[in-house]
Amino acid sequence: MPIRIAVDGMGGDNAPSEVVKGALEAARDQEVQILLVGEADSLHKELNKYSPSKNLIQIVASNGVIAEGEPPAMALRQKPKASIAIATELVKHGKADALVTLGSTGAAMASATIGLGLLEGLDRPAIGGPFLGLAPKTILLDLGSNLDCRPSQMLSFAVIGCVFARQFLGISDPSVGLLSVGAEEGKGNKQTKEAYELFNESGLNFVGNVEGMDLFTNKADVIVCDGFVGNIMIKFTEGLSKAFAHHVSDTLSKYLASEKAGAIALEIMSRMNNPEQTIGPLFGVNGVIIVGHGSSKAASVSSAIALAKRAVQVDLLTKLKTDIAEVMQRVRG
Amino acid sequence: MPIRIAVDGMGGDNAPSEVVKGALEAARDQEVQILLVGEADSLHKELNKYSPSKNLIQIVASNGVIAEGEPPAMALRQKPKASIAIATELVKHGKADALVTLGSTGAAMASATIGLGLLEGLDRPAIGGPFLGLAPKTILLDLGSNLDCRPSQMLSFAVIGCVFARQFLGISDPSVGLLSVGAEEGKGNKQTKEAYELFNESGLNFVGNVEGMDLFTNKADVIVCDGFVGNIMIKFTEGLSKAFAHHVSDTLSKYLASEKAGAIALEIMSRMNNPEQTIGPLFGVNGVIIVGHGSSKAASVSSAIALAKRAVQVDLLTKLKTDIAEVMQRVRG
Repeated sequence: MPIRIAVDGMGGDNAPSEVVKGALEAARDQEVQILLVGEADSLHKELNKYSPSKNLIQIVASNGVIAEGEPPAMALRQKPKASIAIATELVKHGKADALVTLGSTGAAMASATIGLGLLEGLDRPAIGGPFLGLAPKTILLDLGSNLDCRPSQMLSFAVIGCVFARQFLGISDPSVGLLSVGAEEGKGNKQTKEAYELFNESGLNFVGNVEGMDLFTNKADVIVCDGFVGNIMIKFTEGLSKAFAHHVSDTLSKYLASEKAGAIALEIMSRMNNPEQTIGPLFGVNGVIIVGHGSSKAASVSSAIALAKRAVQVDLLTKLKTDIAEVMQRVRG
Repeated sequence: MPIRIAVDGMGGDNAPSEVVKGALEAARDQEVQILLVGEADSLHKELNKYSPSKNLIQIVASNGVIAEGEPPAMALRQKPKASIAIATELVKHGKADALVTLGSTGAAMASATIGLGLLEGLDRPAIGGPFLGLAPKTILLDLGSNLDCRPSQMLSFAVIGCVFARQFLGISDPSVGLLSVGAEEGKGNKQTKEAYELFNESGLNFVGNVEGMDLFTNKADVIVCDGFVGNIMIKFTEGLSKAFAHHVSDTLSKYLASEKAGAIALEIMSRMNNPEQTIGPLFGVNGVIIVGHGSSKAASVSSAIALAKRAVQVDLLTKLKTDIAEVMQRVRG
C-alpha cells in the first residue's frame, strides 16, 4: 500500500495552482497517494489542466482557508472545515500517514496541537533544521515557536535534533551543543545554566556550550536554543542576506558586465540561506506534519511531499516518542 | 589645557609596540596629552625608536598586565598595580579625562566598576554600537556584558543608545526599538513584554518591537536586547563573515584571475563587520573608558584615542547621567 499524504491544497502564496502541480508531480514520481484537501471546484479546475494524470489524486472537500497572520486558534474555531483542519483530521483518523501544508505555520501548529496532541515534555510544536546554506549539516532548534523555555523543553529539542540528524542527515552519533555566550560550563544566562546540568545527565552526546560562531565550526551537529533566540537569528540572517545580496551585486557590477555580475551574485548568495530547509517537520506533535515555505512553487511542494514520505518510511514519529521518553526517564533518574 | 588620555600601554595583542606608535600619532595629530601606562623600561625602549616626538608622551609606571581570559576580579586582586588598574586610577583621581585600552574587556569592566562605579540603573557596564558594516547607523546594545536583564536595565541601554546616536552619529531624535520575535505589542518573551510597557512610558521615541531583519531596515536607530542575544548575534555574524569570505573568494576565483578575485572578495567582505566599531565606550561606568579590539594596530589605537577625545569634548558622561536619571524618574513617576 502506498504512503498516503494529505496535502493542504489551499495553503501558501501560490495555492492552489502550484500546490496542485507539485502534488501531481509527487503522485507521479514518488509512488505516494495524495489526498488533496481544499475547495473542490477550484481544485478540480486546476487538476483538469493535467488531464492524463489527474486520476492519481483524490480530492477531499474543505471549506475556507486560514491565512498567514490570522490568530490561529480563533480562526480554527471560526472555520472548523478549513483545509488545514480537514487535512489534520485525515491524519488523526488514520486516513493519511502525513500532512503537507504551505499555509500558515501558526494554523498548522494550532490544528496539529488540538487535533493530534503533543509528545511528552513539549508545550508547543518545535521547528528547526539546518537553516544556513553555509552550514548545511548543522541543526538549530527551536526556531521560534517556543519562548521562555524550561530546561526540559530544551532537552526535548536536543532529542528531536538528534533524531532528525540520524534519520535525515545520516549522522550516526550526533553531538549536541547548547547555544550560549561562552564555551565554559557556568557561562550563560539562568536558563542555559540550568539546561546545561540537565543536558549533562541526559546520556546524549553533549559537547557543552557553543557560541554564535559555532554555527559554522562543526563543534556540534545539533545546537539548541530558546525559540526567542532562534527566531531572531533566522530573521537576522534573512535581513542580512537581502542587504548583502544588493551589496554583492553592486560591487560586482563595478567590475563585470551586468549579466555576468548578476549570475555570480546569485551563485554567491545561494549559499546564504538554505531554502530547501525552510521545509521542515513540525516536531513534537503526535503525527507527521511538514510545513513548507509559503512562497513554494511546484518543485518545493513536491520536495515537501518527499520529506513527508521519508518521515513516514523511517517511522520518525515512533523514534521521536521513544527517544524523548527514554531521555526524560534518564534525567528523572 | 589639552584633553588628557590615559592609555593602557600593555593591553592588546600588539602591545606595547603598536600601542606606543598609535599613542604617539595621536599625541602629534590630535592635540591630546597622553599618559602612557605600563612597564617603564619597555615603554621607554619603544618610545626611543621615535626620538623626535617621544617627549609628547608621559610614562606612568605600572606592574603586570591582565591577559584576555584571566578571571578579571581575581586578577585585579592579585595584580593591583596592573596597567589597567593604574590607568583607571588616573581617571578616578582626575589626572586623566579618559582611558583607552586594547586589553581584556573583562578586566577593563571590572577595573572601571570597582574604581569608578556605575551609573543609576546599571548592574554592569554595557557595550554596544553599530556593529554591522551593512547597517552602519543602527546601534545595537547590549552586546554581551549583561545577561538576564531586568526591564529597567534594558531601558538604561535605550537611553545610552540614544545619547550615542545623538553625540556620535548626529541623529537628533533617535528612534528606539525592542528586539523581539514579532512587531505587534504583546509578541515576545516575558522579559521583552515587560520591557515594552516600561519603554512605552519612558518618553523616548519608542517605535515598538522590531525583529531580526530590522537591523537592516532603518525601523529604529537604537535596538535594545539582552546581552545574551546581542552576544550571540555578534559572534554569529563573526562566524558567518569568516565562512562567507571563503565562499565568496572561492566562487569569484572560478571566474576571475586570482588577484582580481581576491581584491573584489575583500571589498565585498569589508561591509560585513564594522571593524571601526569594535572600538567602543564602556557605557554606564562613571568615567570615559574606550575599549578597542585586542588586535588593533597603531591606526586603530589612534582612532580609539580620537573617540575618547570626542567623548570628553561632548561631555558624554554628563549627558548619560542626566538622561538616564531623567528617564528613570519619568517611569517611576
